[in-house]
Amino acid sequence: MADQRERALQYAHNNKEIFLNSYKEILSIPSISTDPAKEADIHRAADWMAAQLISLGMKNVQIFPTGRHPVIYGELLEAPGAPTALIYGHYDVQPVDPLDLWKTGPFEPTISGENIIARGASDMKGQAVITLKAVESLIRTSGLPINVKWLFEGEEEIGSPHLATFIADHKELLASDFAVNPDSGLIGAEYPTITYALRGLAYFELRVYGPAQDLHSGMFGGAVNNPANALAELIAGMHDEQRCVTLPGFYDKVRDLSHEERQELARLPQDDEHFLRQTGVPALYGEKGFTTNERTGVRPTLDVNGLLSGFTGQGSKTIIPAWAMAKISCRLVPDQDPE
Amino acid sequence: MADQRERALQYAHNNKEIFLNSYKEILSIPSISTDPAKEADIHRAADWMAAQLISLGMKNVQIFPTGRHPVIYGELLEAPGAPTALIYGHYDVQPVDPLDLWKTGPFEPTISGENIIARGASDMKGQAVITLKAVESLIRTSGLPINVKWLFEGEEEIGSPHLATFIADHKELLASDFAVNPDSGLIGAEYPTITYALRGLAYFELRVYGPAQDLHSGMFGGAVNNPANALAELIAGMHDEQRCVTLPGFYDKVRDLSHEERQELARLPQDDEHFLRQTGVPALYGEKGFTTNERTGVRPTLDVNGLLSGFTGQGSKTIIPAWAMAKISCRLVPDQDPE
Repeated sequence: MADQRERALQYAHNNKEIFLNSYKEILSIPSISTDPAKEADIHRAADWMAAQLISLGMKNVQIFPTGRHPVIYGELLEAPGAPTALIYGHYDVQPVDPLDLWKTGPFEPTISGENIIARGASDMKGQAVITLKAVESLIRTSGLPINVKWLFEGEEEIGSPHLATFIADHKELLASDFAVNPDSGLIGAEYPTITYALRGLAYFELRVYGPAQDLHSGMFGGAVNNPANALAELIAGMHDEQRCVTLPGFYDKVRDLSHEERQELARLPQDDEHFLRQTGVPALYGEKGFTTNERTGVRPTLDVNGLLSGFTGQGSKTIIPAWAMAKISCRLVPDQDPE
Repeated sequence: MADQRERALQYAHNNKEIFLNSYKEILSIPSISTDPAKEADIHRAADWMAAQLISLGMKNVQIFPTGRHPVIYGELLEAPGAPTALIYGHYDVQPVDPLDLWKTGPFEPTISGENIIARGASDMKGQAVITLKAVESLIRTSGLPINVKWLFEGEEEIGSPHLATFIADHKELLASDFAVNPDSGLIGAEYPTITYALRGLAYFELRVYGPAQDLHSGMFGGAVNNPANALAELIAGMHDEQRCVTLPGFYDKVRDLSHEERQELARLPQDDEHFLRQTGVPALYGEKGFTTNERTGVRPTLDVNGLLSGFTGQGSKTIIPAWAMAKISCRLVPDQDPE
């Protein structure tokens, strides 16, 4: 076993440059799932994933169309009696704006010290490529000791609207003993990490409409409810002074934290100093009565992701805007229903 | 006197097309004072105003540079013993975005029924042109029965930063018995209207900064104070439940309304129906204890004019934005100090 591991590592080491080039290839495809203009790039990324599975010797490789972006499947079931792992991944990425904050092109992967800089490098093209290359390193040396099935989707960053249906429709194809989702991170380079739960998401856009058109604030200021002020009041009302979310029923199904779980979370090698460094904020802030690891790990949240209303250019314009918009999302925990 | 008026009206009637063409000329100059890219157009508009004064036979016409946009002066002091009127105007206009809500180009004046549609048509190139043409109609018929001085500025829509200094520096030049500011409107086509006071303005931009860069809401949601949420709380806190502004000292110098003034305001031929029609809102809204005419006429207000933060494009992006911005302005009443 130790010998098998050693040989696979040696193979990976010898092929480091080739692996890195694969990584750069997929990073240079702008597979932004939310952007209808990137349809062709999504398909290029899907084809690239399928080609990787084929060149790894996977059988039954298929590209399944869905209502929007395709799912890729492949399998190697040649270890009779051994367990079967279903390996999940996604080949889509988030949008890249504001572009002016990128020092290098988001789809021009650039090595900087120990990092590679590109959109999707850590979420999760890196993890997808390293999983493929780890399996390759085993196959090309001692052989794969288990059976594997792969499932890559292209809609993770838009909330996976077609994944549940796809799984329900392909239960037998996907049947496995356990599933692996490498779409997470290491706490640190020295801490092998298994994430056993992640928070979910409910995303919504809230629009407040008022006057039929933008009004002059000198003529009408004071007479009507300003949609931007009203939106601010709605958002402010979504938290109370304890920084708890006030939406009715929000915490109804949230499980209490066990003493054991809190102790385990307290052992994580990431303290408040770590969070201050990572975020650059002057002070941490959040739901009263919980530690930062609890707030970011097991407690649900509500955050504004975007705001837009009225005049936002240089200078001044004294209008009462006709509407105001907020993009808002909630991180959800087990038993909360996004619907 | 009646005969003089009749002859001037006849002259105006005969020259209707010429007057309308003048109006269209100045309306087609995009003199947006807040936009540094429109510097040349501001100067074209200033030159146009000066040329109008010269062709009217005004003496001592001058274009005064200021720290930003020029002031135009001209005079006709040929009615000895008669009073001198100082006539104010501004040749700058507000920005035009969002452009997609314009049915015709903002600087392509278009006749639509009884209206002319263009940026600045009613604020206040229309009033400036009609005042010039009214004076012309008198001069060309019975002669002007009073003395006039003209003062046109190009910074009204950005808060007239250089006007007070200009006036202080030119007290003798501008000395007059009364001043006329046609930068207002008629309550209705059948109601000759003299506005004896207008609300002032304090405009500011509020920026809330948080994390060093946009953060992933899955990894950091719950740990930091989201600048967009914090901005919403600040804005919401600027009004109380009576819709009064809560900024400290805001009402300190606001004069109480006299019984007589309230009665006069109540006589204005614009009721709540008028405001509902003009604004298109489903219901009026404002400071408790005051009528709509009072709220829009004599009470100070605070309105958000613009909001911007985070991701505002199509689709979704689950970030905690690094900053959030609001443009906010207050309409001020006598004795309130914008500083």
